[in-house]
Amino acid sequence: MATTAPKTSGRILSIQSHVSYGYVGGKAAVFPLQCLGYDVDVVNTVNFSNHSGYGRFGGSRATAEELSNIFSIMEQNELLVPERLLTGYVPGAEATAAVTGFAKRLRERKPDLIYLLDPVLGDSGRLYVSPEVVPIYQAALPLATIITPNWFEVEVLTGITITNGQSLRQAMKTLHETYQVPHVVISSIPLKSWLKDLLPTHLRPPSDTSDSDYLACIASSREGDLVHAQCFPCLPGYFSGVGDLFSALVVGHFPAATSQSQETAADGETPLSRAVSHALSKTHAMLVLTHEAALALPEEERLATDEELDAREPMRKIRRMRGRELRLIQGQDIIRGTQPIEYRQLQPWTDFWTA
Amino acid sequence: MATTAPKTSGRILSIQSHVSYGYVGGKAAVFPLQCLGYDVDVVNTVNFSNHSGYGRFGGSRATAEELSNIFSIMEQNELLVPERLLTGYVPGAEATAAVTGFAKRLRERKPDLIYLLDPVLGDSGRLYVSPEVVPIYQAALPLATIITPNWFEVEVLTGITITNGQSLRQAMKTLHETYQVPHVVISSIPLKSWLKDLLPTHLRPPSDTSDSDYLACIASSREGDLVHAQCFPCLPGYFSGVGDLFSALVVGHFPAATSQSQETAADGETPLSRAVSHALSKTHAMLVLTHEAALALPEEERLATDEELDAREPMRKIRRMRGRELRLIQGQDIIRGTQPIEYRQLQPWTDFWTA
Repeated sequence: MATTAPKTSGRILSIQSHVSYGYVGGKAAVFPLQCLGYDVDVVNTVNFSNHSGYGRFGGSRATAEELSNIFSIMEQNELLVPERLLTGYVPGAEATAAVTGFAKRLRERKPDLIYLLDPVLGDSGRLYVSPEVVPIYQAALPLATIITPNWFEVEVLTGITITNGQSLRQAMKTLHETYQVPHVVISSIPLKSWLKDLLPTHLRPPSDTSDSDYLACIASSREGDLVHAQCFPCLPGYFSGVGDLFSALVVGHFPAATSQSQETAADGETPLSRAVSHALSKTHAMLVLTHEAALALPEEERLATDEELDAREPMRKIRRMRGRELRLIQGQDIIRGTQPIEYRQLQPWTDFWTA
Repeated sequence: MATTAPKTSGRILSIQSHVSYGYVGGKAAVFPLQCLGYDVDVVNTVNFSNHSGYGRFGGSRATAEELSNIFSIMEQNELLVPERLLTGYVPGAEATAAVTGFAKRLRERKPDLIYLLDPVLGDSGRLYVSPEVVPIYQAALPLATIITPNWFEVEVLTGITITNGQSLRQAMKTLHETYQVPHVVISSIPLKSWLKDLLPTHLRPPSDTSDSDYLACIASSREGDLVHAQCFPCLPGYFSGVGDLFSALVVGHFPAATSQSQETAADGETPLSRAVSHALSKTHAMLVLTHEAALALPEEERLATDEELDAREPMRKIRRMRGRELRLIQGQDIIRGTQPIEYRQLQPWTDFWTA
C-alpha cells in the first residue's frame, strides 16, 4: 500500500482548560492546531462540563501538585519535546505559578522554544481571575515569545489605562521593555474615536460606521520597532473561546526560527504580522459562520442578551450560550485553509512610535 | 464573505481516558471523529501524562462523583444532546458504574441513541482492570448498539474460551442473546489454524503465511444472523491506542437510523460491515504509516521488545513506546478519506452459524 511520507508541523504543548461540551480553552485550540498538522500534547488545567458563561458548570480543577506531577513525569519520560508552548487559562494563583514555573524550566532547556503566553485575566473591564494571578503573569512575561492580551489585559498587566495614543504607546513599550516580550499582539481593542484618528488613513474602516462597530488588532515586534494593525467588524453579542482560537492560530502560524526572517517582506509583512493576519482572518471567518448558524436556530436559542430576564430564567442564558458555541467542526476547512476566505492582512503602522 | 452552509455529522459524547502525550483513549478517538465532522463532547475519565505502557505515568483519575457531577450539570444545562455515545476505558468499578449508569439514563431518554461500548478489560490473556469491572460491563451490554471487544474481552465477558468454531459461535450467541447486543464486532482475533480452516476459502489469507502473521476481524449483526469477516496482516510489535481508534471509526462510520437499511446491499455489505470495513481500512493504513515512521527513527527509539533489558533500563521501553505512538496527525488525510488507501472490505461469512 502506498502511503505518503509523514507530514508534521512539529509538536506543541497546550496547557489550558478543558470543557466537555463546547469550544473554549483547549477545546477551541487543540483541534485547530491538529488540523494545521501539529502533534499537540494536552495538559488540562480544569475539567469542566461547559464554560462558566453558562452560569452553571461542574467538574474539577487541577491542583498545582497534579500539574507539577504531570510535567515531572513527562520530563522523566523524555516526553517534554515540544518546539512550541501555548498556555491559557489556569485556575488560581498556585496552579498558575506551577505552569509558569514549568514554562521557565522548558525555556531554559530550549532557548528557541516558541512560547505563546495568553495572559487570561479578564475582558471588558472585568477580571475573571484572582488578583493574585496578575503578578505571577507579570513575572512570567519575559519567558514569552508572543503574548496575546486583549486591551483590558494589557491595562491590567501594565497598570496603564489606555485612552489615547500616548498611553497605548506607553503600554506597548512597557510590555516590550520592562517585560522584555519580543512580540505583543493586542488581540482586540474597541475602535474608539481616538484610536480611529490615530490609525493611518489606509487602516481606518469606512467612515460611515459608528465606533462600536469595529475592533482593532495590533501586532508589535520589538526588534525593528515594527507595528502592524487591522480593523475588523465586531459581530453582535458575545462568543466564547474566540481568544483561545485566535491565540492557537497565531502560535500555529508563527514560523519556526529556521524558516523565519525578521526582515520585512516586499509587501510589508513580517513573520509576526503574517501569522496574525492568518489567525485574524480565520478567526473572523469562523465567527461569521458561527453567527450565521446561530441566526438559523429556533428563536429561544438566539435570545438577545438581557441580564434581568437571564436572572429570572437561567435556561434562557444557557440556551443562548449553547447557540453561540463556535462552529469549529463545521468550519474546519477554514482552519485547514482549503476553504477560501477573505485575507485580512495586517498593514504596517509606520508612524506608531513617532506619531 | 461567502461561507458554505455548516456541515455536521452530528454530535457524539466520548467518555474515556485522556493522556497529555501520545494517542490512546480520547486522544486516539476524538480528533478522528472531529475530522469526520462530529461535534465531540469529551469527558475525561483520567488525566494522565502518558499511557501506562510506558511503565511510568502520572496524573489523576476522575472519581465516580466527579463524573456523575459532570453528567448531571450537562443534563441540567440541556447539553446532553448527542446522537451517539462512545465509552472506553474508565478507571475502577465505581467510576465504571457511574458511566454505565449514565449510559442507561441516556439510552432511556433517547431510544435511538447509537451507543458503541468498547469493553476495555484487557488483551492477550491479561486483564487491565479490576475483576469487579467485569460484571458491571456485563450488566451494561444490553444498553449497547455495538460492542468492539477483542477476543480476550469476548472470553472474559462470556466466560467462554474460544478454541474452535463451536466456542466462537457460542460466545457470539451469548453476546447477541443473553446480553442482547445487536451488533458485535470482534476487533481482532489471532488467525490460528482452527480459525483459518473455519473461514470460507475466499476470506483466507495467502496459504504461505504462518498463523501468527494474520488477525481476523469479525462483525456480526443479530438481525438476519449476518456475519462478515476480514483478515489483515499483523504488524510486528505492539502499538497502543489502536483499539480506541478503531472503535471511534466504527461508531463514526455507522449510519444513523434514518439513513440506515438493515437490508444487505447487492455487494453483500450491511450498515455494520461497511462501517467496520472503513474502520479496519483506515486503522490498518494508520498502523502502516506508524510502523514506517517508527522504522525511520534512530535505533534507540525502535528497539525490539525485550522484557529483561527493559527491566534493567526503563528508558529503553519508554523510547520504544514513544517511537510507536500512532501517527494520527500525519495520517489525518487517511481518516478524512482524502488520501486513497486500500479498502479492506469485510466479506459475508454465510455459513458462520451453520458450519
